Amino acid sequence: MNINGIHYRTIWHKPGEPPILQIIDQRYLPHRFVIEELKTLEDAETAIRDMHVRGAPLIGSAAAYGMYLAAFPLEHDRDFDEKMNIAAKRLKFTRPTAVNLAYAVEQILGSMAKCSNNKAKIAAILQTANGITEESVEHCRLIGQHGFKLIEAIFQKKQASPSIVPHPPSAINILTHCNAGWLACIDHGTATAPIYAAYDQGIPVHVWVDETRPRNQGASLTAFELKEHGVPHTVIADNTGGHLMQHGMVDLVIVGTDRTTRTGDVANKIGTYLKALAAYDNKVPFYIGAPSSSIDWGIRDGLKEIPIEERNADEVKWISGLDKEGQMREVLLTPTESPAANYAFDVTPARLVTGLITERGICAASEGGLMELFPEKIGFNFTGS
Amino acid sequence: MNINGIHYRTIWHKPGEPPILQIIDQRYLPHRFVIEELKTLEDAETAIRDMHVRGAPLIGSAAAYGMYLAAFPLEHDRDFDEKMNIAAKRLKFTRPTAVNLAYAVEQILGSMAKCSNNKAKIAAILQTANGITEESVEHCRLIGQHGFKLIEAIFQKKQASPSIVPHPPSAINILTHCNAGWLACIDHGTATAPIYAAYDQGIPVHVWVDETRPRNQGASLTAFELKEHGVPHTVIADNTGGHLMQHGMVDLVIVGTDRTTRTGDVANKIGTYLKALAAYDNKVPFYIGAPSSSIDWGIRDGLKEIPIEERNADEVKWISGLDKEGQMREVLLTPTESPAANYAFDVTPARLVTGLITERGICAASEGGLMELFPEKIGFNFTGS
Repeated sequence: MNINGIHYRTIWHKPGEPPILQIIDQRYLPHRFVIEELKTLEDAETAIRDMHVRGAPLIGSAAAYGMYLAAFPLEHDRDFDEKMNIAAKRLKFTRPTAVNLAYAVEQILGSMAKCSNNKAKIAAILQTANGITEESVEHCRLIGQHGFKLIEAIFQKKQASPSIVPHPPSAINILTHCNAGWLACIDHGTATAPIYAAYDQGIPVHVWVDETRPRNQGASLTAFELKEHGVPHTVIADNTGGHLMQHGMVDLVIVGTDRTTRTGDVANKIGTYLKALAAYDNKVPFYIGAPSSSIDWGIRDGLKEIPIEERNADEVKWISGLDKEGQMREVLLTPTESPAANYAFDVTPARLVTGLITERGICAASEGGLMELFPEKIGFNFTGS
Repeated sequence: MNINGIHYRTIWHKPGEPPILQIIDQRYLPHRFVIEELKTLEDAETAIRDMHVRGAPLIGSAAAYGMYLAAFPLEHDRDFDEKMNIAAKRLKFTRPTAVNLAYAVEQILGSMAKCSNNKAKIAAILQTANGITEESVEHCRLIGQHGFKLIEAIFQKKQASPSIVPHPPSAINILTHCNAGWLACIDHGTATAPIYAAYDQGIPVHVWVDETRPRNQGASLTAFELKEHGVPHTVIADNTGGHLMQHGMVDLVIVGTDRTTRTGDVANKIGTYLKALAAYDNKVPFYIGAPSSSIDWGIRDGLKEIPIEERNADEVKWISGLDKEGQMREVLLTPTESPAANYAFDVTPARLVTGLITERGICAASEGGLMELFPEKIGFNFTGS
């Protein structure tokens, strides 16, 4: 999508050798637009762990390219495979919840296995990393097309009964949590892809953007990308969604996912479960933008089987923003002595999810629903964790 | 309760004339302890509207004393009653949701009506304001005693089955939202009164403190007062409560209320409804610290009849805290151009509320439950809005 009228992806491989990976360093958004260069495995680890890049599809791609950064200097190394296995473990360890990351690293290891020498392995790794990235873009585009039909149907229904349209008049009000936008992916986004598709085709949409504490990916990233694309939106505190739904001010919720079980339980940014409860209580459709790369086909019980990352308490106690002099600055929100806890994700049980929007279409959040779209996974037994 | 070992109330009338009202200016907590003097009606209006004082019981008391500040200079004014009616309207207009404020102002007007001259009216107003304040303290103390029994019962049950105690071991984990602590009242608090009572009687309690965006009354005020009193607590993002409840890490939720209908619908800080949904979904008891001064006996449908205050969007876009040099500073969280919305309260339907803890005891959140405790309200027909 565009920033200031120029098309960007979130990550790209700069042509030439030794390899350089370029990323938008998302820690500075929305206040500064910074491009960072990653040159080593360590750079990639830091960028993923410290969230210069974040979002399940994007960290999958970043980890795949991270494997390439790790492999490139090992062309003449006898312990290539052993060192790459260590690199794989290190990259998988950076973030535990999203399954894309583990999938991408496994795919890279698989591509290596077919080659007879290091040079061929390195070439295969780059090709696979490029493939994962292009596939991710295409899957997001398709999610946009399938999700567009949902929004179009709501629009047609609303036009037929205009009295039920409180805010803003005549627009489709979509609530989203966190950033499952193009900044979380390579392009288009998962939750946002249907929104961009609808906007681009002239359907009036308005997005309620949950700020998404503690890291505020909604206020800083989703608001930024919607603004750059021109999509009308309003930032709200995470506490607000229930009130809006009670008053008919939300037509549809679409969020992303970091890991969805084969039964349709959805791990996503902490707070998603609370919005799902409110949507259920108010009969608001609640959809997940779920590329198959974020589905963990090997597990069934999201609450018991998905590891939930606990991050540093300082992410709750301190917050960063732009001060009145235009400097980025961190400020303390709590008493110095008060402890804080920082659970990064929660699990929304499938019973609260209206449907999953995948690259192959929309299905029920259930094993039956998923197996209709992905019949090749009926016997699958892999867990990414 | 104590600050740094010294007992304070949130508001007090400094002896002498002309009248001076002293308040803890809560805008600077937890980083600075500032006492402000209010000398005029305008000072009181500003202090309430701009939230130097906040919390339903406290703004009731502040408005009552504000009427006294308005009355004092009018001793020889022929238009005393007319001017006091205008003062009443102005004070009621400062914050629309909490019913205590309107009740307190009505009580002051009622006390005036019985007097034959201005001097007597002024004396009656001060006496009534003092009475409202002392009654509020006593009601909070009683809520603490009644709520203590709930916590004690959970403690005894947990001791009998210690395996279901994940965090921290052996403590009763209580989640609260916003600040319904002594800083929202005059002393003790409403939601916190049972917690302080349990802590003071040696029951191990641990409080999950919702930070409570956008104004962060949890992170700044509840954390501060619990810390000063020595009660173990952990600050969490508002998104976190559902996850904690799913994992058995919350034994009890207690929150306050800004206005409760005679049928038990509860208006409280935005986000309360989402926590109530999660508590209901996970069978966690959900109680309201509800002094009768916050019950609006004249209305039945919380969603339709309680006005929800919309505050300035900048409270969402900007946040203040202490920078690393120790200066209080505001920082911008969103793109400059992104709009924000700031609904301050939501309504939790009675069906999600386990019980109301009033000064007369605990009752079901229903008209029947309330009428058992407050039979004199059976024919009552007053609305404070």
